[in-house]
Amino acid sequence: MKKVLPLAIAAALVAPAAAMADATVFGKVHMIVQSYDDGSDSVWSTDSVFSRVGVKGSEDLGDGLKAVYHLEFGVNPDASGTLSNRNQFVGLAGGFGTVLAGRHDTPLKMSQGAFDEFGDLPWGDITRVMPGEDRLGNVLAYVSPNLSGLTIVGAAVAGETGDTGSAATSDLTSLYDHISVAGLYSNGPIFASLAYNTYDTGNLLAQSYSPSIIRATFVWNGGNWQAGAMYSNFSTDDLAALDDVTSWGLSGHFMVTANDKIKAQYLSGDAPVVKVNDLGVSFSPNITITGGDDQVDMWSVGYEHSFSKRTYVHVGYTSYSQDSIADDQSAFFGGLVHSF
Amino acid sequence: MKKVLPLAIAAALVAPAAAMADATVFGKVHMIVQSYDDGSDSVWSTDSVFSRVGVKGSEDLGDGLKAVYHLEFGVNPDASGTLSNRNQFVGLAGGFGTVLAGRHDTPLKMSQGAFDEFGDLPWGDITRVMPGEDRLGNVLAYVSPNLSGLTIVGAAVAGETGDTGSAATSDLTSLYDHISVAGLYSNGPIFASLAYNTYDTGNLLAQSYSPSIIRATFVWNGGNWQAGAMYSNFSTDDLAALDDVTSWGLSGHFMVTANDKIKAQYLSGDAPVVKVNDLGVSFSPNITITGGDDQVDMWSVGYEHSFSKRTYVHVGYTSYSQDSIADDQSAFFGGLVHSF
Amino acid sequence: MKKVLPLAIAAALVAPAAAMADATVFGKVHMIVQSYDDGSDSVWSTDSVFSRVGVKGSEDLGDGLKAVYHLEFGVNPDASGTLSNRNQFVGLAGGFGTVLAGRHDTPLKMSQGAFDEFGDLPWGDITRVMPGEDRLGNVLAYVSPNLSGLTIVGAAVAGETGDTGSAATSDLTSLYDHISVAGLYSNGPIFASLAYNTYDTGNLLAQSYSPSIIRATFVWNGGNWQAGAMYSNFSTDDLAALDDVTSWGLSGHFMVTANDKIKAQYLSGDAPVVKVNDLGVSFSPNITITGGDDQVDMWSVGYEHSFSKRTYVHVGYTSYSQDSIADDQSAFFGGLVHSF
Repeated sequence: MKKVLPLAIAAALVAPAAAMADATVFGKVHMIVQSYDDGSDSVWSTDSVFSRVGVKGSEDLGDGLKAVYHLEFGVNPDASGTLSNRNQFVGLAGGFGTVLAGRHDTPLKMSQGAFDEFGDLPWGDITRVMPGEDRLGNVLAYVSPNLSGLTIVGAAVAGETGDTGSAATSDLTSLYDHISVAGLYSNGPIFASLAYNTYDTGNLLAQSYSPSIIRATFVWNGGNWQAGAMYSNFSTDDLAALDDVTSWGLSGHFMVTANDKIKAQYLSGDAPVVKVNDLGVSFSPNITITGGDDQVDMWSVGYEHSFSKRTYVHVGYTSYSQDSIADDQSAFFGGLVHSF
Repeated sequence: MKKVLPLAIAAALVAPAAAMADATVFGKVHMIVQSYDDGSDSVWSTDSVFSRVGVKGSEDLGDGLKAVYHLEFGVNPDASGTLSNRNQFVGLAGGFGTVLAGRHDTPLKMSQGAFDEFGDLPWGDITRVMPGEDRLGNVLAYVSPNLSGLTIVGAAVAGETGDTGSAATSDLTSLYDHISVAGLYSNGPIFASLAYNTYDTGNLLAQSYSPSIIRATFVWNGGNWQAGAMYSNFSTDDLAALDDVTSWGLSGHFMVTANDKIKAQYLSGDAPVVKVNDLGVSFSPNITITGGDDQVDMWSVGYEHSFSKRTYVHVGYTSYSQDSIADDQSAFFGGLVHSF
Repeated sequence: MKKVLPLAIAAALVAPAAAMADATVFGKVHMIVQSYDDGSDSVWSTDSVFSRVGVKGSEDLGDGLKAVYHLEFGVNPDASGTLSNRNQFVGLAGGFGTVLAGRHDTPLKMSQGAFDEFGDLPWGDITRVMPGEDRLGNVLAYVSPNLSGLTIVGAAVAGETGDTGSAATSDLTSLYDHISVAGLYSNGPIFASLAYNTYDTGNLLAQSYSPSIIRATFVWNGGNWQAGAMYSNFSTDDLAALDDVTSWGLSGHFMVTANDKIKAQYLSGDAPVVKVNDLGVSFSPNITITGGDDQVDMWSVGYEHSFSKRTYVHVGYTSYSQDSIADDQSAFFGGLVHSF
C-alpha cells in the first residue's frame, strides 16, 4: 500500500531522495550586440538569441531498454518575454531505436545536420530562406538505431482540429495528418541527408491540399575545413494558387587555428519563407510557404573564437536582399555563447 | 557586514556554492495517445497529461526542526501552453508536524489517498464526478505528525477579495474565509479518510452562502489487490437554488504479476462537476458545484505494466454518460509515464 | 565533424553528461501573512514576496578567465501568476573585471548595498520612496575588480525603440541610450556608494529630455549593530513640467542575540515613486518619477529570528502617509524566508 499517503504530504515531510539525483539541468545563454540597417534606418541592440534552459535524463530499465525525457524551454534575457517551449518529450530507447511523444523538431529540420554556420542568428539562420524549419507539438517520433552510419527518423503529427468533439471544420482527426521523414547518413568526413514532409490541410480551404517539402543536404568535413550544400523544393499543390518554391544554399568554414574559425554561407530562394497563416490559411502545423515569386538572396561571413567546448565568441555580417524590397538589409553582430 | 556587496555582483564573481547543492529537481512526463468519441465524431490525439517539473528541498535547522520548500510547475509538451502552477510552498517541520504557506491541494483533495486508479487522465479522473478536487492559493496549512496511523491536515484559505483596500464588494478579508480539513488513517492494509470543506461566499450574491462538502474514502490493499470506496455530499446551502449533490465511487485493481496491474473504476453522481463561476457566481476559491439534477455515470477499465518504480506504460478505456446528453462519450487511450 | 548528428537525436540517445553537472539550482521562497489597513478597510492575506528560482554557474576557461551565467525567474506561490523575469545574463570574468549582457539590476539599484532593512516587503521596501530601483533588459554591464575596496559598476542600456527598422518615433537606436554608473566602497565596517543614472527620452515628447538620478548611500556596520543613510535627487529636466524630487532615508538594526535582530527604517520624499508611464509618457527603461509635490513619509520597525544562514522568520509593521491621501496606511506582517 505504498502510495496511500498523499504525495503532497510526503513532499513536505520527506527529505529529497538520492535516487532522483540524475536529472541534468542544461542550457545555453547566447547574447549578441548587433547593428541592423534596413537601408534607411540603423539600430543598435543588445539581444538574446534563442537562449534556453532545460531538464533531461534517462533511466536504465534493464534488458537494454531505457526511459528518456527532455523538457527544454526558451528563456529571454532580453527586454521582454518569459518562457517559451522547445523540444519536450518522453520516450523509450532500446535496440529497436527510440520512440518518443511530445513536442519536437521535425525530422526535416533535424536533417540539416551541421550545415547552418549561422544557426539561431536572427539574420543569418537558414529559416529565412529554407521552408520547413518547424518544431511541432502532437508528435509521435521514431529514431532508428545507427545502421552502418544511416539513421532513419520519422514523425507523425496529429492535426487535432476536430478535438472539440463536434464535426470539425478542418476534419484533421488522425495521428498522422502531417508526416515528416528523414534519412541521415554520417560516415567519416561525410554527412548526407534526404528529408520529406507532407501535410494534410483538411477541408479548411473548401478543398483538401497536400503541400510537401523535399530537402537534400550534403556536408563534407575535412578536419580543419567543412563545406556544405542544401537543396529544397516546396510543392504547394496549388494551395493559394502558389507556384512551387525552390531554395538552395552553400556553407563552409575553415579553422585558422584549433580554436578559431572563419565561416561563410550563401542562400538563395524563389521567395522569403513566411508562415502559411500570413496568407489567411490557418491550420495546426507550422507549415511555411511563400508569398509568390519574390527572389531572395542572403549571404553571411563570420569569425568564431572558442574558449572551450562550451564557450565561444563570434562576430559576423549578413546581407539580405529581396526583389520586392527596394533597399537591401544588413546586420553586423558580435556575441558570446555559453552552454551548460 | 556580510551582505554589503550586492548579491548580483557576488553572483557574477563567485563560483556556485557547494552548500546549495541539495536542491532536488523532480518531475513527471506523461504522454498519451487517445481516441475520443462523443457519439458523432471520433478524434485521435497525442497529448500531455499533467506533465510537471519542480524543485524541492529541506534544511536541517537543529533541535528536530527543518525548513522545507517545494516549487512545482505544470509543463505542456503538447501543441500549446507553457508553465502553469502546481503545489508551491515553504514551511517548517518538526515534532509538532508541518506548517506551510503557499499554493496547495486542499486537505479534501489530499484525502483521496490511492483511491483514484485513473488519476490525471482526461476522461477517467474522479474530478469529473467528485466535487472539491481543488488546488488553491493563499493557503496556510498544517499537517500533524503521524499519530498511531492518523494524520490530521487542515488548510485556511484567505479570500483576499478586499485586497484593493476599498470596501470590497465580496468582503472576504480574513485568513480563513474557506477551510478544508481532513483526517487520514493509514494502518497496514487499511486507508480511511474523512474530509470537510466549508466556503464563505461573502456578499457577492446579495446574501452570504456557506456551501460545504463532506467526503469519506476507504481503501483496502490486500497486497496483490486493492479495493476502494468513496462517498461525497456537496451541500449547496441553496446557493443558486441548487439541490445538494451526492456522488459515490468504487475502484480496484489486481496485480496479474509483480509488474502488471488490471484496474477498474466506477463513479456516479447527481450532476457533472462544473466550476461555480460557470453559474455566473465568481469568488476566489475553486469551488465546484453542479448545474442541477443531471445524473452522470463514468466507468473505466485499464491495464498497467511497470518497467520500474519510475516508469510504466498503460492502456485503458473510459465510458461517460450524462442524462442531459443524448450520446454517451468514450475514450480509448494508451500512455507512457516517467517520473524523475 | 563533431556536431553532425543533430543535437535532438543525441539528447534522446545519450545519457546525461557528467561534465554538465555544475549547474547550480538556487532560489528563495518568502511567504508572509499580513494585515493591511488603508484607514477605512482592513484585509488579511497570505502572500508570496518576490519568491524566486534560478540556475547559475561558471566555467574556468584558463588564464584567469571564466564564463559566468545566471538565469533567475520570479515565481508566485500565491493566488495567481506564473514566472516573471529577474536577473538573467551571460558574461566573461577575469583580472579586468566582469563584462555581461542581458537583463540586470541597474548599478544605481545595486548601490543600495545592505541599506534596505525591509527589502522586498510590499509596504516597507525603499522602492516606494526612492526612484531608480530598476531592473532593465538590453543591458551591457561592467563590474570592475575590487580596487582596495572600491568596485566600479557601469551599465549601458539600449532603448531599441527603432528596432522595427522604420524611422522610429522615439529614435532610441544606440547601445547606451540610458546609462547607470556606481562606485561602491566597502572596507571593514564601512560601505559607501555614489550612483548616477541618465536617461535619453528620444523624441517621444516632441522634444528630448534627459532626466537623471543621483544617489548616495552610507552604511556603518559595527558588528552587532548597523546604521545607514541614503540620499537621492531625481532631476526631471522639466519633463512633464515636474519639479525635482529629493528623497532621503535612515535605517538600522541591533543584534539582540547572535540570531535575533531588531530593525527600523525611515524614508521621506517629495512624492511617491510611480512609473513614468503613469504620466502618459512611455519609453523602454523603467524610469520612475513622481506625480508632483506630494510629500510621503514611511517608517517601519521589525524583528528577525534566524534559524540558520538560509532560514529566518520575521515580524514587522510599516506606516505610510502621503499628503494627498487623507488616511494613513499601515500594515502588520510576519513571514518565513528560506533560501536555497
